[in-house]
Amino acid sequence: MAGGVENAAVARNKKVVLRRHVTGFPSEEDMEVVDDTVALRVPAGLKAVLIKNLYLSCDPWMCGRMSKHEDEASRPAPDFILGETLVNYGVGKVIDSTHPDFKAGELVWGMSGWEEYTLITHSHLFKINHTELPLSYYTGVLGMTGLTAYAGFLEVGRPKKGDFVFVSAASGAVGQVVGQLAKIAGCHVVGSAGTDEKVNLLKTKFGYDDAFNYKSETDIAAALKRRFPEGIDIYFDNVGGATLDAALLQMRRGGRVVVCGMISQYTLEKPDGLRNLFCIIPKAVRVEGFNVSGYFDVYGKFEEEMVRYIKEGKVAVVEDVAEGIEKAPAALVGLFSGRNVGKQLVELARE
Amino acid sequence: MAGGVENAAVARNKKVVLRRHVTGFPSEEDMEVVDDTVALRVPAGLKAVLIKNLYLSCDPWMCGRMSKHEDEASRPAPDFILGETLVNYGVGKVIDSTHPDFKAGELVWGMSGWEEYTLITHSHLFKINHTELPLSYYTGVLGMTGLTAYAGFLEVGRPKKGDFVFVSAASGAVGQVVGQLAKIAGCHVVGSAGTDEKVNLLKTKFGYDDAFNYKSETDIAAALKRRFPEGIDIYFDNVGGATLDAALLQMRRGGRVVVCGMISQYTLEKPDGLRNLFCIIPKAVRVEGFNVSGYFDVYGKFEEEMVRYIKEGKVAVVEDVAEGIEKAPAALVGLFSGRNVGKQLVELARE
Repeated sequence: MAGGVENAAVARNKKVVLRRHVTGFPSEEDMEVVDDTVALRVPAGLKAVLIKNLYLSCDPWMCGRMSKHEDEASRPAPDFILGETLVNYGVGKVIDSTHPDFKAGELVWGMSGWEEYTLITHSHLFKINHTELPLSYYTGVLGMTGLTAYAGFLEVGRPKKGDFVFVSAASGAVGQVVGQLAKIAGCHVVGSAGTDEKVNLLKTKFGYDDAFNYKSETDIAAALKRRFPEGIDIYFDNVGGATLDAALLQMRRGGRVVVCGMISQYTLEKPDGLRNLFCIIPKAVRVEGFNVSGYFDVYGKFEEEMVRYIKEGKVAVVEDVAEGIEKAPAALVGLFSGRNVGKQLVELARE
Repeated sequence: MAGGVENAAVARNKKVVLRRHVTGFPSEEDMEVVDDTVALRVPAGLKAVLIKNLYLSCDPWMCGRMSKHEDEASRPAPDFILGETLVNYGVGKVIDSTHPDFKAGELVWGMSGWEEYTLITHSHLFKINHTELPLSYYTGVLGMTGLTAYAGFLEVGRPKKGDFVFVSAASGAVGQVVGQLAKIAGCHVVGSAGTDEKVNLLKTKFGYDDAFNYKSETDIAAALKRRFPEGIDIYFDNVGGATLDAALLQMRRGGRVVVCGMISQYTLEKPDGLRNLFCIIPKAVRVEGFNVSGYFDVYGKFEEEMVRYIKEGKVAVVEDVAEGIEKAPAALVGLFSGRNVGKQLVELARE
């Protein structure tokens, strides 16, 4: 290459590319693992960081970018392009850098590619300050999903001691952290999940006061009424749909609904209709849509606080780890059927 | 009566009572105007205020109390009782009082009965401080609906100069005030209404920058997109249903939806399903249910500010006045078909 890489070693670089746009549920056939190679040096003249990806995060929001949207310009992130590598948060090690803030050998997390090596030219990359903890935590509890739980629950939910808190998808990457933050804040917290195993995990591992399997309940509103006889102060919503509609009926005066995700709705061509939003008028309930992008300025504070909770045993972590990039498509697809137990991630290498 | 009224004059007291519970739309047959009499003195031993009702307010929320609810205990206000007089805000003149704060001859507004005279024992009664303005204003722009517009728009909507504001039912009691407060706050404001006459009123009388007749639009989302090419910062929702769903699609990042009323939904057995709430996640939109009951502590400040706006010509008022208590049922029913132009009230007497 002209003025570019000289004598750089070349490595294999397997990657997951978008094979076709998703309609409805994503399937493994929507993606393809392809072989490629990469020069292990940043091209001359480019300010960039070349990282070896160690852990990839699997998150529901990727599905939105895998679909094709007519109104792409108005969407939060552009659609992925056919044949190009998927992107999402991940943990990596710096192999080469021409960026003054990063040096070879450093561990980082941030927006990366679904591939073995990624050349990063954007600035959404953070140093890992606590290498004494498992690096994979920076895909979850110490990364984007942990910050989502922290900022969503504390800044949007604004818990008070004694509040009654309900969390859906409660054993997932975000839910497991929200429940434990709710206990730290002195709240009574109940979670819902989709298997008895996950319900058990909520009570035995994550300190939820109570939990239920929504698939075993014929009437979610009644299930919530039994568990919240005085009503709900904060509902942290990861699922939308019927669970959100049922929770709206049980909100207390001045309650807050933190709308963080709607995994039940992402794959529907026509979303379920919500019928109970009128309840928010007499009870003056706040329903606030939330995404983490506005909160990276509190990351430093969050990281120190969360590391302390983990070390003190106040926050436990459950991860579901797939091994190798070939397993990444199946790991992502599994999120939409709830196959994962805890934070889903893919391990590509340990260092 | 034992220890009670001695030598008190007795007057005719026509009243509107609930004849049957409402299902779907309220109709005149759900109510009955009956003859009664009243002693024109507060019974001895009772701390109360006897008022002659001058103006009655007609508001959509009355319909909810005219229905029969299984879950009455959890509702914001109890159901009206068959055969008993309807209650709502009104303006009156004190005829007799044993309450230290009120004297005969004073003008008051507050929660009263749909009848010619009401004996008031509760404390939700306020003195009228500005008798130089039409007394009827205290059923609307200077009363509950004006305070609703003021607190909802300013405290919940939190407008900034240059914000793009959309108001539905924009010529109604609340909407006409919201639009004018939006102009005072330096916003660009567009309203929707259900007749061309009302649309004209919005532009010529209330200073709306633009307005449209939602009944002439086949696609409300497209109508909003044309009028808000940059999106909506504040949607002040008085109607719910399809208009709310369309507005959710057009909200800007950090937008606020003040959910004040859902007149399109009150009379449906099964509310319309909202399908676009997911939009609030990527754009971090706040959807906040609002009712005026939490804001009476700012009434004094509101009254002075609003009186000044009216005197300065910054807030215009349009009222739709029915004459005589016999017309009250039809006036109330007309709200649900949008027959009223502006604030609907009933005049019983001028003083």
